[in-house]
Amino acid sequence: MRVEIWSDIACPWCYVGKARFEKALEAFPHRDDVEVVHRSFELDPNRAKGDIQPVLTMLTKKYGMSEAQAQAGEDNLGAQAAAEGLDYRTRDRDHGNTFDMHRLLHFAKEQGRQDELIGLLYRANFAEERSVFDDDERLVELAVAAGLDAEAARTVLADPAAYADEVRADEREAAELGASGVPFFVLDRAYGVSGAQPAEVFAQALKQAWGDRPPLTLIQDSGDAQACGPDGCAVPQG
Amino acid sequence: MRVEIWSDIACPWCYVGKARFEKALEAFPHRDDVEVVHRSFELDPNRAKGDIQPVLTMLTKKYGMSEAQAQAGEDNLGAQAAAEGLDYRTRDRDHGNTFDMHRLLHFAKEQGRQDELIGLLYRANFAEERSVFDDDERLVELAVAAGLDAEAARTVLADPAAYADEVRADEREAAELGASGVPFFVLDRAYGVSGAQPAEVFAQALKQAWGDRPPLTLIQDSGDAQACGPDGCAVPQG
Repeated sequence: MRVEIWSDIACPWCYVGKARFEKALEAFPHRDDVEVVHRSFELDPNRAKGDIQPVLTMLTKKYGMSEAQAQAGEDNLGAQAAAEGLDYRTRDRDHGNTFDMHRLLHFAKEQGRQDELIGLLYRANFAEERSVFDDDERLVELAVAAGLDAEAARTVLADPAAYADEVRADEREAAELGASGVPFFVLDRAYGVSGAQPAEVFAQALKQAWGDRPPLTLIQDSGDAQACGPDGCAVPQG
Repeated sequence: MRVEIWSDIACPWCYVGKARFEKALEAFPHRDDVEVVHRSFELDPNRAKGDIQPVLTMLTKKYGMSEAQAQAGEDNLGAQAAAEGLDYRTRDRDHGNTFDMHRLLHFAKEQGRQDELIGLLYRANFAEERSVFDDDERLVELAVAAGLDAEAARTVLADPAAYADEVRADEREAAELGASGVPFFVLDRAYGVSGAQPAEVFAQALKQAWGDRPPLTLIQDSGDAQACGPDGCAVPQG
């Protein structure tokens, strides 16, 4: 079974939701047969790369919250994160464009290091003092910690076209699947879970998606199957 | 959309079927949104690693064919391969255990080089004089040609447990999906195509799987979705 998770590094509920999902996955009897793939979704795609703001400033300016409301929201998110065992800085975090991080995550996927990198990016953004938005070298450090080659990561970051199509394709698919927010979990392209639901909901979704898998619809022509099996290969006549 | 292809390097119809599928994929308008994953299936899992035989000897001993029948089958497969533009040695090929190649393909998958490696393995087995069954260094050469690190490939090959679970998991899934022979193509876990069908059948399967994708069934609890979207993140109350 495959679980695809659409998310953004700048999305606090994605950080929390990932931990809740993983709790459910850990307890799922068929966990070794579950493959997890991370997909790109930008919450703020139109923000320029250099346009970095404190989260509180962004919340008050973009969503018209009062500073007290915005801070209360952050405090509350911090408490929800803590309940999942996650560190969360409720003060002085930055907000910015995440496109380069998504491009880097696609490179990491190709190298089998996507899960490592996304975990480090979340932690860096939500729990560590140094901003992930300040310069590429911060992202290179995280890439190296995830097992990627520094020079290769630098090359990806330096070329705005590298893996850009892959990010856009993920975002197009999210829209096609009806996801308007993140995190958005898709199980075998049959079941969807929207938001950082409790671990019990993910457990139920895993169970249902695993148990309810319908038999495949076979598509074939009328001829003999040209295949090999335990009894040998079909030999074409004529 | 994701297409999973169960196959074995020792399976001539897998070699031919891959080319037919790729012809259909090349002409498919949404080809850039199709991800192809190769899955393991051993036609001859009980053959000992060192038990290497000429294909003709294997066909006569294992399936009780006459030598003339076996050779006619190979000639016919060679003609089918040629029709897809593939080289095929109809004389003096070897047959053996493919478990190590499947382990190496899983390593290559982790490194984003699976498609490159499986293409080279097929070509080496079906079209080149040197046997792929003779020694690990042959496989290391092919791994390097696929873009993998020689030392890392050598380490994988030297450890019989490396990626063995992944191979077994693929084979278990094939059985669960009802595949008794290969190649076996699965589109988004909804449609199956068994055997090296004509390219037109693959084209139809791609079209049908793409167009018929049912909407996701959403699973969630009764509470508010804790998610972030274009209008900000839901803020927990209380």
